[in-house]
Amino acid sequence: MSTDVVALLRAELGERVDVDPAALDAARSDKSGHAASGLPLAVVHAASVADVQATLRIASATGTPVVPRGAGTGLAGGANTGGGEISLSVRGMDRVIEVRPDDLLAVVEPGILNADLNALLEPHGVWWAPDPASRAISTVGGNIATGAGGLLCAKYGVVRDAVLGVDLVLADGRLLRLGHRSVKGVTGLDLTSLVIGSEGTLGVVVGATLKLRRLVEGERVTLTALFDGVRAAAVASAGVTASGAQPAVMELMDATSLAAVHRLLSLPAPPPGAAQLTVQTDGPVAAAEARAIADVLRAAGGTVTVAADAAEGEELLAIRRAMHPAMETLGTTLIEDVSVPRSALPDMFDEIARIERQFGLVIPAVAHAGDGNLHPNFVFEGPDVPPVVWDAAEELFRAALALGGTLTGEHGIGVLKRRWLADELGDDQWRLQRDIARVFDPLGILNPGKVFAS
Amino acid sequence: MSTDVVALLRAELGERVDVDPAALDAARSDKSGHAASGLPLAVVHAASVADVQATLRIASATGTPVVPRGAGTGLAGGANTGGGEISLSVRGMDRVIEVRPDDLLAVVEPGILNADLNALLEPHGVWWAPDPASRAISTVGGNIATGAGGLLCAKYGVVRDAVLGVDLVLADGRLLRLGHRSVKGVTGLDLTSLVIGSEGTLGVVVGATLKLRRLVEGERVTLTALFDGVRAAAVASAGVTASGAQPAVMELMDATSLAAVHRLLSLPAPPPGAAQLTVQTDGPVAAAEARAIADVLRAAGGTVTVAADAAEGEELLAIRRAMHPAMETLGTTLIEDVSVPRSALPDMFDEIARIERQFGLVIPAVAHAGDGNLHPNFVFEGPDVPPVVWDAAEELFRAALALGGTLTGEHGIGVLKRRWLADELGDDQWRLQRDIARVFDPLGILNPGKVFAS
Repeated sequence: MSTDVVALLRAELGERVDVDPAALDAARSDKSGHAASGLPLAVVHAASVADVQATLRIASATGTPVVPRGAGTGLAGGANTGGGEISLSVRGMDRVIEVRPDDLLAVVEPGILNADLNALLEPHGVWWAPDPASRAISTVGGNIATGAGGLLCAKYGVVRDAVLGVDLVLADGRLLRLGHRSVKGVTGLDLTSLVIGSEGTLGVVVGATLKLRRLVEGERVTLTALFDGVRAAAVASAGVTASGAQPAVMELMDATSLAAVHRLLSLPAPPPGAAQLTVQTDGPVAAAEARAIADVLRAAGGTVTVAADAAEGEELLAIRRAMHPAMETLGTTLIEDVSVPRSALPDMFDEIARIERQFGLVIPAVAHAGDGNLHPNFVFEGPDVPPVVWDAAEELFRAALALGGTLTGEHGIGVLKRRWLADELGDDQWRLQRDIARVFDPLGILNPGKVFAS
Repeated sequence: MSTDVVALLRAELGERVDVDPAALDAARSDKSGHAASGLPLAVVHAASVADVQATLRIASATGTPVVPRGAGTGLAGGANTGGGEISLSVRGMDRVIEVRPDDLLAVVEPGILNADLNALLEPHGVWWAPDPASRAISTVGGNIATGAGGLLCAKYGVVRDAVLGVDLVLADGRLLRLGHRSVKGVTGLDLTSLVIGSEGTLGVVVGATLKLRRLVEGERVTLTALFDGVRAAAVASAGVTASGAQPAVMELMDATSLAAVHRLLSLPAPPPGAAQLTVQTDGPVAAAEARAIADVLRAAGGTVTVAADAAEGEELLAIRRAMHPAMETLGTTLIEDVSVPRSALPDMFDEIARIERQFGLVIPAVAHAGDGNLHPNFVFEGPDVPPVVWDAAEELFRAALALGGTLTGEHGIGVLKRRWLADELGDDQWRLQRDIARVFDPLGILNPGKVFAS
């Protein structure tokens, strides 16, 4: 059977069907470190919409599971492909079809990287706002499939706010064009939004009409504020939001994270227990906003340093950006992704401290404090997540839900969180969502075992 | 059978079940002027989520159609209730449950009017941005059900951008809580977005968690620009968008509309054939933006008048706001609602002129020019839309689709546009959308005959 599938794919797609053992092994995992069991049947390197359609027609005819894949930078195992499955890569479909600065839109293929897209858009005076930390290595299609976030979301929105339409190939190979090129449009159900964040369970994203923004004019002002502890920093960040100021970036690093990054970058050690906020303002009133924010942070007990210029500002932000490399020096990392209303940020950090004590773990945490999205990191030895880490993570999810939050702000469910999805949705909504996915994919061949697997 | 249904409703809901002939008749129509045939069985004035659930349980048990209703200000017949159907009004559920300026959210019941909500929010320094022209008389729940737009959308977004979560009662009476209180959240499928604009086909919206904005600080600057004709005005408005300026409001009135309003308001007649743009800027750089926009408009041949102060600015905007009353003085009005990419606005006005000639009609048109949404008005005698008007409207829809647009920007499909929905979606997507609706409502009792009726 599996040989037949590869032969069928080969007959239609020729050399775009890859069975090289290294390629098959690479398709088993993403940046979460988790790997699917078994080797995929093949990796199909689609070069066109027709390639995607052909692959899905063969998959439907043979009942073969298909796992769509971009650059493989996901953090929830959503693109991991295992035994008996086809890995369908759209990474090679990376053209920009159309840029319309006058209509503030661009039409692109899914495989283009965020950073490459914005480099192409800049001469037109426009940009696409979604900026996950992985923006240099993640694809627009992957951003759409996961409903990605990033650092700029409180001011500039998430992926859902930045997509007008999606071209989707269904499980049976049919192509649908969802959404609009106009700012407004309410014809029937908003399937574009439904596809955003659906993690490959509804179809394969083969194109997108993106909503662009004008490049932000004016200066950028960057500042840091050092606090005695993470709770004080969290209270201060909630205070900034409550004050009405709207920073473009507001990142929080707890003491363990800050110390680890300072070690990695050979910077002087921060004061013991100190946590840090890094804030950037932009736009025509950036300087005045930065002054107002600095006042709020000082009043909250922070020691504020304002960057002298843009270059120094980038150095301050580089400390935050070095978080993941710093964690990787400590061991294998499970990056969690809870999100809470912004006023609940201090309480969520209290919960992390409680969970650290309860399970005897150290959980370095950073947060997109401007929008309430936390990334607590579990660091351990070896390739497999130890049971105690999952127990602590479960406690983390419970705490976030109790504070009115969610168990994933921007990484998605994938395989790593599927057993907790019903805890957040409730059984009724969980079943409804699964039944909707079945309308798109009656045979259940699209990314089975992800998101809705019970 | 129908008596049984009313008796069953009465037994559970008592006096909230209304069979007064005037109430039944009022539930047959909305602001479109179109009325359903036959009289509803009853109007249920729900006072609580439990009332809505009880109504839907009885409807499901008896197979009785239910039409959810807010203030009845829709323009597509979506809330019109006919023979054998229950009109389920949530207008009385109008409490604000929670306002959290620190988290920029509010939790509300669906029956509150936009204007009432914003009056309540203002002392907290926040507002809810959706501002359909009907904001003084339309409900938040109705805004959500139709995916409403308004004047401020290019700068401040549509309803879809302003809702974090929705509480939905399903056809069988179960209550689901969809969405998040946090800025970010990607657990499973985005059913909140799916419900927005679903026009009562998926469930009854009984609560919403709204995303708020800070009140905009600084002055507002209003200006008008008079052009020789509507095409010149449309070219100028597209030029404003292409220049990178972002007005809060940019409204276009064609010559017929402008003249009719001037007559209604007893203002001096505008020059024959003259069309007008009305622009408002806001925020910290409002004055500079207004100057830049005035330069663009003058270069495009416009005669610019800048309001001396806020009061004069409101007078200028009042001319645009008097459009619908002015049309009502001319006869019965069918307000159309096509939307196109902003660069296509001049071509769309050319198409309207062509259709006027082709069908021998006068089609006064206004546009939310900042976002490409046009409202051509068909004016006729008597209660029924004449066939020639539907023929001309169909031609209008075709023209909008050919320009990359949509047949409804913000009013929805309801009954009035259901026969053209598949023209835009394609048959495959039309069926998929209908099948998704059936997952929510397997018996087909929710707003049958609307949106997906073929």
